[in-house]
Amino acid sequence: MKIALVVEYNGKRYHGFEWQKDLPTIQSKLEEAIHRTTGERRRVIAASRTDAGVHAKGQVVSFWTDSRLSVQTIQRALNARLPDDIAVLSAHRIPERFSIRSDAVSRQYNYYILNRPYRSPLLLDFTYFVAQRLDTETMNEACSLLVGRHDLSSFVTSWEKDTSPVRTIFEARMERYGDIIDFKIVANSFHIHQVRNTVGLLIRLGLGKLTLSEFKLIMETKKPGLAGPTAPSKGLCLTKIDYKQTLGRIEQE
Amino acid sequence: MKIALVVEYNGKRYHGFEWQKDLPTIQSKLEEAIHRTTGERRRVIAASRTDAGVHAKGQVVSFWTDSRLSVQTIQRALNARLPDDIAVLSAHRIPERFSIRSDAVSRQYNYYILNRPYRSPLLLDFTYFVAQRLDTETMNEACSLLVGRHDLSSFVTSWEKDTSPVRTIFEARMERYGDIIDFKIVANSFHIHQVRNTVGLLIRLGLGKLTLSEFKLIMETKKPGLAGPTAPSKGLCLTKIDYKQTLGRIEQE
Repeated sequence: MKIALVVEYNGKRYHGFEWQKDLPTIQSKLEEAIHRTTGERRRVIAASRTDAGVHAKGQVVSFWTDSRLSVQTIQRALNARLPDDIAVLSAHRIPERFSIRSDAVSRQYNYYILNRPYRSPLLLDFTYFVAQRLDTETMNEACSLLVGRHDLSSFVTSWEKDTSPVRTIFEARMERYGDIIDFKIVANSFHIHQVRNTVGLLIRLGLGKLTLSEFKLIMETKKPGLAGPTAPSKGLCLTKIDYKQTLGRIEQE
Repeated sequence: MKIALVVEYNGKRYHGFEWQKDLPTIQSKLEEAIHRTTGERRRVIAASRTDAGVHAKGQVVSFWTDSRLSVQTIQRALNARLPDDIAVLSAHRIPERFSIRSDAVSRQYNYYILNRPYRSPLLLDFTYFVAQRLDTETMNEACSLLVGRHDLSSFVTSWEKDTSPVRTIFEARMERYGDIIDFKIVANSFHIHQVRNTVGLLIRLGLGKLTLSEFKLIMETKKPGLAGPTAPSKGLCLTKIDYKQTLGRIEQE
């Protein structure tokens, strides 16, 4: 059977989601916990691979198993075997034809900026600290330019082989909550570094180092490396993966 | 001159506020940063001493200095010399007769409980995880019993020498925000372990292991060690110290 898990993790200690030789990654920790639970060596795939240091509260992963354990038992067993900074929030048996990757309708990321004169010891690991006041109004004007179907070549760090540069952004918005700015972006899928390069460019705009028409020009030039700088990974969180129906609903079908 | 600082810290790495030989404490880090800024060895006192592992976002401390640096310069210099998990949010020159400890009108602490079936990797260091659903309604009934002027002997771990067991609690309340329960308590001052013992007792009540009348009886018996168990320090945060006027206002007088 095929199992989907909704996973939360603190990315601080990890070299990203994907397996790397001799380095701690989310994938290797999950595969290890599955092995210790079912005795099987299974490959875990993610709906949205996260970079080193990026957090997740709604990552979705899947794997195959011949285990006869119930999904509830699998969830409990994995949580008991996973390190404290990774947790399975729910587990679902999904149809074999269902792909958590290609059936995903949208991915939501949030990027948190601490925008006040002094750092916050309590938010250190979850926000990017910008001391100078950011103009969120202008940043939101740029966000509305991002919404829609676009060639986003300017927002990648370097050319990615065999992939179309076109993506559809459903939502992009900055909200200020006191000292914290929450940037929400929802798209069908994302390029590597796309969100962090977008945030880096938006911050330049918010600091007045870039005009809105320069932002537009960078977007329209469609040349890798133009956006950025790549904002630090600790401010980024993969919040949600959406499907046509919830995973609970898909499971019951 | 006398300087007051508003300080935020992540208590995780520290053995509490107060100086201890060969152990990292908030006081020793502040005194070290002051020494490196002014060249002076000064004693720092806190409006509310916090235990090992307890966080603060509104601690107030004070010290004397003969330095001619402006308070703004002192703040900047301290932030540059303090470790990342301690920060000075504001600095104020206060009158010599003003005591940040005895002139404090109230202290506010918040205690955060994560109340859902599975742990949260992202909130691990800032919440106490309780998997079983807590009955916050009954817990709030107990909270309203706490409000007022009471002999709180039952809420201390052991007798404290030379101090009256009487304290005035101005506010005590549980609010649920999704999976997070935020317990807010405001009092003129607190006994050692009082908040954590109160939370421990309230959790027993919320789990149905204690009735409201038993809670009342424990309160009225006035015997150290009756409340508790002492809830873990990582859920606790010293949020605010209030004076008759704000520190900014006191400074300008």
